[in-house]
Amino acid sequence: MYHWGMKQTQLFTQTRREAPRDEVSKNAQLLIRAGFIHKEMAGVYAFLPLGLRVIEKIKNIVREEMNGVGGQEIIMTALQRKEVWEQTNRWSDEKVDVWFKSELKNGVEVGFGWSHEEPITEMMKQYISSYRDLPIYVYQFQTKLRNELRAKSGIMRGREFLMKDMYSYTLDEEAHKKFYDSAVQAYHRIFYRVGLGARTFFTFASGGSFTQFSHEFQTVSEAGEDIIYLHRQKKVAINKEVLTPEVMNQLGVKKEELEEVKSIEVGNIFSFGDMKSKEIGLYMKDHKGQQKPVILGSYGIGISRLMGTIVESFADDKGLVWPGSVAPFAVHLIALLEESGSVKKAADVLYEKLTSKGVEVLYDDRDERAGEKFSDSDLIGIPTRYVLSKKTLDEDSIEVKDRQTGKVEMRKLGSL
Amino acid sequence: MYHWGMKQTQLFTQTRREAPRDEVSKNAQLLIRAGFIHKEMAGVYAFLPLGLRVIEKIKNIVREEMNGVGGQEIIMTALQRKEVWEQTNRWSDEKVDVWFKSELKNGVEVGFGWSHEEPITEMMKQYISSYRDLPIYVYQFQTKLRNELRAKSGIMRGREFLMKDMYSYTLDEEAHKKFYDSAVQAYHRIFYRVGLGARTFFTFASGGSFTQFSHEFQTVSEAGEDIIYLHRQKKVAINKEVLTPEVMNQLGVKKEELEEVKSIEVGNIFSFGDMKSKEIGLYMKDHKGQQKPVILGSYGIGISRLMGTIVESFADDKGLVWPGSVAPFAVHLIALLEESGSVKKAADVLYEKLTSKGVEVLYDDRDERAGEKFSDSDLIGIPTRYVLSKKTLDEDSIEVKDRQTGKVEMRKLGSL
Repeated sequence: MYHWGMKQTQLFTQTRREAPRDEVSKNAQLLIRAGFIHKEMAGVYAFLPLGLRVIEKIKNIVREEMNGVGGQEIIMTALQRKEVWEQTNRWSDEKVDVWFKSELKNGVEVGFGWSHEEPITEMMKQYISSYRDLPIYVYQFQTKLRNELRAKSGIMRGREFLMKDMYSYTLDEEAHKKFYDSAVQAYHRIFYRVGLGARTFFTFASGGSFTQFSHEFQTVSEAGEDIIYLHRQKKVAINKEVLTPEVMNQLGVKKEELEEVKSIEVGNIFSFGDMKSKEIGLYMKDHKGQQKPVILGSYGIGISRLMGTIVESFADDKGLVWPGSVAPFAVHLIALLEESGSVKKAADVLYEKLTSKGVEVLYDDRDERAGEKFSDSDLIGIPTRYVLSKKTLDEDSIEVKDRQTGKVEMRKLGSL
Repeated sequence: MYHWGMKQTQLFTQTRREAPRDEVSKNAQLLIRAGFIHKEMAGVYAFLPLGLRVIEKIKNIVREEMNGVGGQEIIMTALQRKEVWEQTNRWSDEKVDVWFKSELKNGVEVGFGWSHEEPITEMMKQYISSYRDLPIYVYQFQTKLRNELRAKSGIMRGREFLMKDMYSYTLDEEAHKKFYDSAVQAYHRIFYRVGLGARTFFTFASGGSFTQFSHEFQTVSEAGEDIIYLHRQKKVAINKEVLTPEVMNQLGVKKEELEEVKSIEVGNIFSFGDMKSKEIGLYMKDHKGQQKPVILGSYGIGISRLMGTIVESFADDKGLVWPGSVAPFAVHLIALLEESGSVKKAADVLYEKLTSKGVEVLYDDRDERAGEKFSDSDLIGIPTRYVLSKKTLDEDSIEVKDRQTGKVEMRKLGSL
């Protein structure tokens, strides 16, 4: 989808000094001010050109890793049938309090997908009948709709948000465990690749009726809604909800060694065992010809939440700071225009040169004051800034500034 | 997103002899049988690995052409605010009969986007205040939700479907007309690139309150729900809804020269003039400092409908037939396995060789009878089939068959 380059005179978004008054989260405030997202209503955000580029970069990293463990990409539907969810007793609003529901013209009730375990498992009844059909790993990037009571965390908890959800269908617990472990490794790689590796922890959390634990990936952050207990050396993290003496004993840690921190749940993985397959009726014939329920696991990453977490983790008082792997552009080229037109001419040439090499460049070719351009650039947060001015041009050079460290150096134009 | 290759033993979908009984459309019947889509309910389909690849290929063609005319990609939201749509009197179910609606926990009514002219135009109030901000062209690929009374045309008329919608915001009618014409040309290129060019016609249709006509792109097809009148030599097409003596006179055609055909509306473009901007309050200061409403155009292509139209246009009695530009894979490599294992070995080598060159290959490595493999391959409809058997291997050759023409030739393995 990418142009290698974009000129800021063509980009329709502009930076804003103020975020909407009702926006209380740091991530949404900055993303709105920088023109990455637009707030439609609380917890519901549109993604504008810069924001969509970040989303697509995150998706591509996740996609590569999901393909790498054998995942096959599909896309399920928002509209959901009541009967599918009644099988697992998750249709009623008493059981699941985030449903949006509506009805067809003929009066049939429909729901809007807040999760997809049920419909995917229901569908698999058409494709799984024998052990020979297994294993199957499928995933999707899907817009989930959840009628959240409160939505005050910007793009970290939306009423409408983008999620990657993967599902594994395996023959037995052994095959499940093996895939589960490979998914854990893929998740670690994803969080490292988007820049959050060092602050994201594999965390023990409550498991539901089938397993003692589920596992979450929690990113340590003051903006988090969760509390985890952390043993940094041992890389053990425990969600507050399961912090009992037995659990600590089991994991070989003591309460006094643990650090209490706020964190953001950026991923979760879950073993359903044969529970859901039994409820939905997903059986296969095993090697001995016996009917057995299929073992199911689910593996989620909130894509828009991950973007919000990156913002919360790296932004500074000047604005956004993007890790290179997910930045909307690699280079922010800023031309400080002057009357002779020579800077503009040189910047145009450099822009063509860089983009023709495949460097992703946002080119600030606007007729604005230097101060304005620099503060906009800080707010947008592209990793590397190139500044071309009459002064640098006289030295056949460009000023290169690192957004994160603030480090500045001069480089010869010919070296780029 | 693409793997260059996929082994059929890994692909989770299988072909089916029968489509669901309630599925009456040819496109959905074939796509379901071939494992491209899954029917969730009438007019609501999930896209499985093969189907998603076709969708992504169509999207990429459309994206290139939209970028080519200066479009900036965004993604709006499914959830819609009542107040936005009340401005143009399109909230009430009496005015728009395809709304799905629900409500937030606090009782506030929300709608699910069946179109996005209103929210995008509302958003543009934040980005357009002067003639200097214009023109702006934005587009999105968005899942639209429409509560259709009937949904019997498979993926050609869904309750949930993927649409590309573009919007142009320009200074005046002259700038609008210029962009409108370039969008028409981009649309022609799109329909040619997906293989429908020769049977798709720029069609005069009813225009609404602002212009005499809107324009549609209609693909001639027996599966169509529309009727157009066609003058093939003059390349003039008129939707039945506006076929009056005045219109024929205006377009220089006579009733008796026109051919009545069924057709599918694959695209439509529409001039709103300043009507919607006035209703929504999108004004800008022109060169003279005067407040003026912005000129709006909208440009739609149903992406999933386009896929359905391609199916309806090219499928034969054996199954799907994909044009190369949108086929899920370029080559279907079929190995007719035998006991020695030499065919399997040679096919594995060829698969690696082709995919490493970037050829997209679906590799039928299954242990199935030849007849089964051939009929599956016909059903799936990949443009070129390579068959490797003991016999061809003995001649150091492969059989190459064109899905569309049925033409067969032998080629030396070394030449691939």
